[in-house]
Amino acid sequence: MSKTILLAKRPAGLPKLSDFEFVNEVVPELVEGEILLQTKYVSVDPYLRGRMNDVKSYIPPFELGKPISSGAIAQVIASKNEAIKEGDFLSGILPWKEKLVSNGEGLLKVDEAKAPLSAYLGILGMTGLTAYLGLTTIGKPKKGETLVVSGAAGAVGSVVGQIGKILGMRVVGVAGTDEKVSLLKNELGFDEGINYKTTENMTEALKRTCPDGIDVYFDNVGGSISEAVLFCINKFARIVCCGAISVYNNTELPKSISVQTFLVRNSALMQGFIVFDYADKYPEAIQQLSQWLAEGKLTYTETVREGFEKIPQAFLDLFDGKNKGKMVVKIY
Amino acid sequence: MSKTILLAKRPAGLPKLSDFEFVNEVVPELVEGEILLQTKYVSVDPYLRGRMNDVKSYIPPFELGKPISSGAIAQVIASKNEAIKEGDFLSGILPWKEKLVSNGEGLLKVDEAKAPLSAYLGILGMTGLTAYLGLTTIGKPKKGETLVVSGAAGAVGSVVGQIGKILGMRVVGVAGTDEKVSLLKNELGFDEGINYKTTENMTEALKRTCPDGIDVYFDNVGGSISEAVLFCINKFARIVCCGAISVYNNTELPKSISVQTFLVRNSALMQGFIVFDYADKYPEAIQQLSQWLAEGKLTYTETVREGFEKIPQAFLDLFDGKNKGKMVVKIY
Repeated sequence: MSKTILLAKRPAGLPKLSDFEFVNEVVPELVEGEILLQTKYVSVDPYLRGRMNDVKSYIPPFELGKPISSGAIAQVIASKNEAIKEGDFLSGILPWKEKLVSNGEGLLKVDEAKAPLSAYLGILGMTGLTAYLGLTTIGKPKKGETLVVSGAAGAVGSVVGQIGKILGMRVVGVAGTDEKVSLLKNELGFDEGINYKTTENMTEALKRTCPDGIDVYFDNVGGSISEAVLFCINKFARIVCCGAISVYNNTELPKSISVQTFLVRNSALMQGFIVFDYADKYPEAIQQLSQWLAEGKLTYTETVREGFEKIPQAFLDLFDGKNKGKMVVKIY
Repeated sequence: MSKTILLAKRPAGLPKLSDFEFVNEVVPELVEGEILLQTKYVSVDPYLRGRMNDVKSYIPPFELGKPISSGAIAQVIASKNEAIKEGDFLSGILPWKEKLVSNGEGLLKVDEAKAPLSAYLGILGMTGLTAYLGLTTIGKPKKGETLVVSGAAGAVGSVVGQIGKILGMRVVGVAGTDEKVSLLKNELGFDEGINYKTTENMTEALKRTCPDGIDVYFDNVGGSISEAVLFCINKFARIVCCGAISVYNNTELPKSISVQTFLVRNSALMQGFIVFDYADKYPEAIQQLSQWLAEGKLTYTETVREGFEKIPQAFLDLFDGKNKGKMVVKIY
């Protein structure tokens, strides 16, 4: 038997534990070409919230009463597929199940000797790729420019800021606790950090920490932080819209200051970034990230929860900012 | 003596005639290298409203008590400059004066034989350049795609739509009277027109007229029309933020639906466009526009007011949508 987590209800606003349902299911017998996987690590990510709504987006919504799926690392515990060996570790988008049968399609072998398994969900997985490709393709960073990152202590933000430093930028991170701000400055090499929860006037704080204005804004949060940034952008600024965690749970469409006049006044650009659009650049990005990681230029932070049944709570905790860096759940 | 128009007060909200002051001034004697100009045509444009505020922008604000300036065509009526002949017509940014002395710097000779003088303020001037370069550099139009233009019967919008048609796009224009909508469809070759003032649900109207969604939105107006567009954009849509006449007179910062989630969901781009950033492309653009004009593929519409003292009212009328196409004031 294997536990599975289904989407029981489409969340209204902030998701609740009761939106999820645990069921036990029989694991089918393997047929030729199939493998049996045991899930080792599950990634929980803010973007999953969007898939819980019944709205057309870049990936189809989850179906009610069906398993939720996300990035995961699993180990092959039995194989009737010649190409895949028992004991191998695979990464891919997998349903939230303890054990599952697969034909191996869409799964990539990962090497535990080169990096810890969970890193393939973070720095060498979707988060690292999002940080690197979002910053380089839309942000087009230049040495000496100023980069502001919101959600800076989060999975993507913490990597974006470090890449900004590697590329010679001034980097200012915005996060929601003093502890996170201290992590940014003392462990991740950010030049400045702003705790938005204790800052009365974000625009003033940004002006103070970005004396030369903001050239690139990597936006993970949307909302009022992103509004404040608009008042500080430089001519030809680039805003990477990577996510908007501050509004994912809104039941009404959020309003904010109209961006048009700021964009016109500064010949500035805002562009939505979805890592899946840049699949042709994954190899180059992973190569670069692995190299920086090996050289010790890049570190990563993760928050690890343990136990299959902790997956829903770990997901909910993202919206309370309870994670530092990548949030993963260790299953076995 | 020459009449001059000064900025008497910085407008609060909608500009009023009392924000302008007429004075008479003595025209100085020419010294070596100078020319005496008589203004023939003055261009009034929505963007001048921004320069009347005391706000940092892409061009410095007008000074209180000093003449306002805008695009103009003037004739040389006396010359002590060897390079410039009496009788020549010059175009450039000139102060609102009947007569003025200049050294000719920054002024371009225009040829009355090739196109009517006023065309050099419109289709072959800043408006034509804005339409062509905004659409091609940010909009990156592709044959078969759908283009929506707001302020479609305005100086820039009417040219954008026609260029869209030349490039093989489906073109839908949004304007504020039935007469304008009819102009778009019957004279300028737009596929569809929407009168936003008589349309209750803009999103529905856009969905109906753009059955394949919106790939490029050329935004001259901002505000609620631009909000409605967000619900209809396709994956990889490009939004050219060229102006926001609907909010230029707001005394408070306008609020609208947050664009972030729409941009992320569709990997879409919004970019502010200022023609002055693309000066290196002017020759190519003028060449192309002149050719289309000569081939009869491009027509232009203008609203001509007469008399120097009509300049302020012509400017105010822009915000009531009283112009069709380019608004110019003929002086002599």
